Amino acid sequence: MIQLTYSGDEQQILNERKDALQQIHANLYDKKGEGSEFLGWLDWPSQLSESFLNQINETAETIRKQADVLVVIGIGGSYLGAKAVIEALSPHFSNNNDFEVLFAGHQVSGAYLKELLAYLNDKEVAVNVISKSGTTTEPAIAFRFLQQYMEERYGDEAASRIYVTTDEKKGALLEVAKEKGYDRFVVPDDIGGRYSVFTAVGLLPIASAGFSIDELIAGAKEAEQAYKSFDLEQNPAIRYAAIRHALYQEGYKTEVQATFEPKMNYVQEWWKQLFGESEGKQGKGIFPASVSYTTDLHSLGQYIQDGERTLFESFIVFDEVDKDMTIVEKDNDADQLNYLAGRSLQEFNEKAYQGVTEAHLAGDVPQIGLRMKKLDAHHIGHLLYFYMLACAYSGYLLNVNPFDQPGVEDYKTKIFELLGKPGYA
Amino acid sequence: MIQLTYSGDEQQILNERKDALQQIHANLYDKKGEGSEFLGWLDWPSQLSESFLNQINETAETIRKQADVLVVIGIGGSYLGAKAVIEALSPHFSNNNDFEVLFAGHQVSGAYLKELLAYLNDKEVAVNVISKSGTTTEPAIAFRFLQQYMEERYGDEAASRIYVTTDEKKGALLEVAKEKGYDRFVVPDDIGGRYSVFTAVGLLPIASAGFSIDELIAGAKEAEQAYKSFDLEQNPAIRYAAIRHALYQEGYKTEVQATFEPKMNYVQEWWKQLFGESEGKQGKGIFPASVSYTTDLHSLGQYIQDGERTLFESFIVFDEVDKDMTIVEKDNDADQLNYLAGRSLQEFNEKAYQGVTEAHLAGDVPQIGLRMKKLDAHHIGHLLYFYMLACAYSGYLLNVNPFDQPGVEDYKTKIFELLGKPGYA
Repeated sequence: MIQLTYSGDEQQILNERKDALQQIHANLYDKKGEGSEFLGWLDWPSQLSESFLNQINETAETIRKQADVLVVIGIGGSYLGAKAVIEALSPHFSNNNDFEVLFAGHQVSGAYLKELLAYLNDKEVAVNVISKSGTTTEPAIAFRFLQQYMEERYGDEAASRIYVTTDEKKGALLEVAKEKGYDRFVVPDDIGGRYSVFTAVGLLPIASAGFSIDELIAGAKEAEQAYKSFDLEQNPAIRYAAIRHALYQEGYKTEVQATFEPKMNYVQEWWKQLFGESEGKQGKGIFPASVSYTTDLHSLGQYIQDGERTLFESFIVFDEVDKDMTIVEKDNDADQLNYLAGRSLQEFNEKAYQGVTEAHLAGDVPQIGLRMKKLDAHHIGHLLYFYMLACAYSGYLLNVNPFDQPGVEDYKTKIFELLGKPGYA
Repeated sequence: MIQLTYSGDEQQILNERKDALQQIHANLYDKKGEGSEFLGWLDWPSQLSESFLNQINETAETIRKQADVLVVIGIGGSYLGAKAVIEALSPHFSNNNDFEVLFAGHQVSGAYLKELLAYLNDKEVAVNVISKSGTTTEPAIAFRFLQQYMEERYGDEAASRIYVTTDEKKGALLEVAKEKGYDRFVVPDDIGGRYSVFTAVGLLPIASAGFSIDELIAGAKEAEQAYKSFDLEQNPAIRYAAIRHALYQEGYKTEVQATFEPKMNYVQEWWKQLFGESEGKQGKGIFPASVSYTTDLHSLGQYIQDGERTLFESFIVFDEVDKDMTIVEKDNDADQLNYLAGRSLQEFNEKAYQGVTEAHLAGDVPQIGLRMKKLDAHHIGHLLYFYMLACAYSGYLLNVNPFDQPGVEDYKTKIFELLGKPGYA
């Protein structure tokens, strides 16, 4: 369970929004609010069949046997969920013989692609291309290069090294997969990209990286069940949404999400997509920003302490970390650290969290804390589901549809016009 | 030279601020404005002696001969400058036998340190510890661990593998360096951390990574000379500062810095420290945020297009990229990309830049463009100096001291109190 703390008067916030939240709760679980055709993620963890998880795990096992590197091609929601979980659970430094999951098609960089292809040359490779339509420009470009590379390198065997995650019934990528005989996984119709981490979109790369998708899903399922009921005092997902909404109405327009765990930095990127794309519409929405402490205390820390007073902060904190180290006493205390001797780095970060929270609160930056037991697959699954659910409440409180993204068509249309794509005059 | 473009009426902005800018110009170059004791960076590139650069290059050569990995210990300005330049110039994927520069002491993560130490075990190691005082907590903790590791592993030879960058005349690290006989480099008194990339703080790690500090400094020197004169129309550093100031006064409180070059992402982090720490004080300042395109068009893009209208965007764009790829024609055009056949990825990004700018401008997000010829050491040196100078103008326009950071004491004091550091009751 996530323990939520808030520096302000939470009871009043909840009281003022009780009716609205009750209505949102009913709309969500009766699937009748705006955008409810995209609520497939809501009971997805508990609906997932064991045979589906087995199929993913078996394919991942095959990939790990046939390859040293899996190149995952995807962008936005077809990229960030897998990247977030894999980064959260991976060591900071990898050894030569470790299996690697690398990404492509999440931008259009010639240097990146060229350097990636060169890097692959002395490694065995598999590819997982993820795109609902198969025509999203960035991953489609990357797949053109990677497909050609695989076919030139592996000939007919390439088909058994390429895995496709796409629409079940239609689309360009589905047709290619059928023609070539690639193994296929489904992007469900009722789950948008930024809510898709627990589908094959996220699970195949995560399992291929060697992490337990069973534990990840167990954590998500635990969150699904724990946060289902409309018990305002006990439900941190609803409380987080309500507090954000109150802060937004008071003029706090930017949420700075903070963590002391550098492995969480891509969970923060995933969170920025989830909330930014769900809420940023109709001239509304909290701008999601992220900082990584303590490093950014020496960067954005000054602004957060003393800049424009339109920020609030939300922390992700863990009680335990997997690896810890203890500061030793030294004869020469020139660095003045002997007062910390015998204490662990986790203890330091815990005090840093308290100290930063007190200082920033004194500087009029409201503080939300989200505390979990441990950084592991189970708790990451729990946390991601928590955010997805909170985001739905939060979007509806703002009176926006949390499941569409109308604004991304604008720039796409402009780009296609400039490039002269057929159909865009 | 940086070509600056702006979507609004620049002439009016400059006219309205002409006197203020003239005064700032005079204060800067006569060194008499607030914080002018920290203006050492202003003519640093042209004052640098060849013998100083030679000394750095020779030490870097020694490090590259004696080690496979240089661990750079530093935080904030003692970390971000080197990290930014190295990431901008390095390939995305490294091979086993490439020399590596890794960082430590930029946060307090037990997992990071433990995994770093394990990674170092089958490699030859050198360490560059960077701290003006020697008592900044995070790097001091990391150095306790690394110094012990080096001494246990290398015995007496450790001293010839540890390089110290610190105050010239005083401080904990200087005393340790003298006692142990470590090679020393100087953090100048008149250059703050976020302005220190062209001193030994940045140059030793950058040269050790194998990049030309001569070209980097030549670029900085070119910028120093090009942007010295008070010629409003011709000086993009002054123009950038003036435009930001006008936008801020109109209610645009967040600057979203965007690039299409993923290698520039740590230059963006460096920029966030530079501007955030320089301007975020007295309840004022533009909040610096960054996006990496096209990936974040599928994330924060929706918010930027349609969210709260308090954002403006500034792009860093390059005419040329080092490695490019050309999209090939395919028999099967299922992915609908044949219309791009024969075009390069750089061309795609150029059109994407135009399209995004048009779309976001139509969504009432003012647009600034900073265009440079090429992503290389020379142009990065030029760009970083440009930003440092623009930041000085920008801070002074806001009536803040761009060279102090009073707010970072608040959280430090709280943390030290909680940890019971002697002297903090």
